[in-house]
Amino acid sequence: MFREKIKVFDCTIRDGGLINKHDFDMPFVKAVYKALSEAGVDYMEIGYKNSKKLFAPKDFGVWKFCDDEDIKKAIGEVKSKTKISVMVDVDRVDVDDIKKKKDSPVDMIRVAAYVKDIDKAIYLVNNFSDKGYETTVNIMAVSRALDNELSEALHQLEKESKAQVIYIVDSFGALYQESIEFLVKKFKSILKSKEIGIHAHNNQQLGFSNTIEAIIHDANYVDGTVYGLGRAAGNCPLELLIGFLKNPKYDIRPILDLISKEFIPLRDKLEWGYIIPYAITGILDEHPKSAIALRESDKKDNYREFYESLLGDDID
Amino acid sequence: MFREKIKVFDCTIRDGGLINKHDFDMPFVKAVYKALSEAGVDYMEIGYKNSKKLFAPKDFGVWKFCDDEDIKKAIGEVKSKTKISVMVDVDRVDVDDIKKKKDSPVDMIRVAAYVKDIDKAIYLVNNFSDKGYETTVNIMAVSRALDNELSEALHQLEKESKAQVIYIVDSFGALYQESIEFLVKKFKSILKSKEIGIHAHNNQQLGFSNTIEAIIHDANYVDGTVYGLGRAAGNCPLELLIGFLKNPKYDIRPILDLISKEFIPLRDKLEWGYIIPYAITGILDEHPKSAIALRESDKKDNYREFYESLLGDDID
Repeated sequence: MFREKIKVFDCTIRDGGLINKHDFDMPFVKAVYKALSEAGVDYMEIGYKNSKKLFAPKDFGVWKFCDDEDIKKAIGEVKSKTKISVMVDVDRVDVDDIKKKKDSPVDMIRVAAYVKDIDKAIYLVNNFSDKGYETTVNIMAVSRALDNELSEALHQLEKESKAQVIYIVDSFGALYQESIEFLVKKFKSILKSKEIGIHAHNNQQLGFSNTIEAIIHDANYVDGTVYGLGRAAGNCPLELLIGFLKNPKYDIRPILDLISKEFIPLRDKLEWGYIIPYAITGILDEHPKSAIALRESDKKDNYREFYESLLGDDID
Repeated sequence: MFREKIKVFDCTIRDGGLINKHDFDMPFVKAVYKALSEAGVDYMEIGYKNSKKLFAPKDFGVWKFCDDEDIKKAIGEVKSKTKISVMVDVDRVDVDDIKKKKDSPVDMIRVAAYVKDIDKAIYLVNNFSDKGYETTVNIMAVSRALDNELSEALHQLEKESKAQVIYIVDSFGALYQESIEFLVKKFKSILKSKEIGIHAHNNQQLGFSNTIEAIIHDANYVDGTVYGLGRAAGNCPLELLIGFLKNPKYDIRPILDLISKEFIPLRDKLEWGYIIPYAITGILDEHPKSAIALRESDKKDNYREFYESLLGDDID
């Protein structure tokens, strides 16, 4: 697949940070930035902008806050066309922490929000756009959104927001390709002036194929992480995405090197990927938190009991 | 997805046997058969029928030959609707080894063949059909087939063969969903009297999604293996397929139990799954043998050099 408008967006450090409290050391982050730059990846998301009034810096690594000084250290002297992104969550960012773009090493800010928080997201994204940043709104847990509420949110985003890109986020890794097709077509039909993005989780080994599916239906912003690193099952593997795209600007070789040198050793320290409890929460369209808790318990490989526990809630 | 005609076909022991010389012990095979039976899986492929004139039994496990006595031991006293299949390769089977169906515990015989061997495949499959078996022809390496030769083979299969099912086999894990759609539609347009099957390898984490894609376009025979076990990257994970299909006869729970008890320990002994050299051969549409050799060498994690070695052949 070659389409010039496609932008490959790496969120290894940001999404991976959810499994180590954002505590990747500086040489690792520098290695990722250098490899992404050499591979021609368009964006690297390096962490979150969280308010230090809400989270104590001593309890987390620096990529939970992404101070300019730390970003500049990671970039170092590398010659690169790879732009830097940070993510903000609704209700967790202090808007006054965000300087004007001209005074910052950051190029893009992505606002993650549920459908119910779309008004807050629009406020934030317009604030950041006015400060000069490229911006996106990432609609989380879209597999759980009620269609009429999602439609209303998309109409608002089209009319009221300055975001250039609106992302479909399959937070639970629950969606099959038919639903990705449905959603991309829906987003495009309403968001006439925006690009569409896709951020796919890999609970059912569908992260890559769902990203291809979104590309087929004209999503142009595609997220991946190196070796699929990310919370729980992780994400669409960046190396597969680069292997699929035919745009000559991309080069898979620096990513292969990076995996050999940094990610194979990392696998001994962090757990992510295709692990049955995460597949189960994906199949059931559930947040992975129950599976994460299971993996930290002494019943971590008791899959049947875990599955049955999720079916067991009384409901009417 | 619910469609009554869909048949789930497990080939754990047969395909998995390619990484351990078909040497699964009897308690393991019995556990697989029991779990598949409880899960409502339609077929279990238990191994190959290879000629003992070509392969010495002392060099392999029993599932390379599948003598009736061994199959009967594996079935034991289990009450089951799961049918037993064996695979034969063109030029490796002794046709006289195949008795009449009424004298055998086998229900189905699948003939694996390249496009170039289609005449031999038709000879075999008609012989087995005449003996009373359900039969299929599995067209291997379909990603490498020239379209006109594939068309001719399919026309022959439609006119001359008694096989009920013709399989698309993505031997190298090279195909993306657009090509699966193309192939299923092509197969269906020619094979008016046959069912279509899909056997997808998982080099690029597309085994499951390609199987879904084939189902969407009306393939009804779908292969999987428990926990994706199989040579190199392995196959479409059966548990995901069962999680996706809504047919009430299927039950994921016995498969989850089986993975906990038998496949998690097996992972310490055998290597399969998403491993970068297999992803690379998938991206490049190559047989995995070079990657298998790499994994057995002291350069097993030297991905960039391996990738470059595959690009390096002189050609004109």
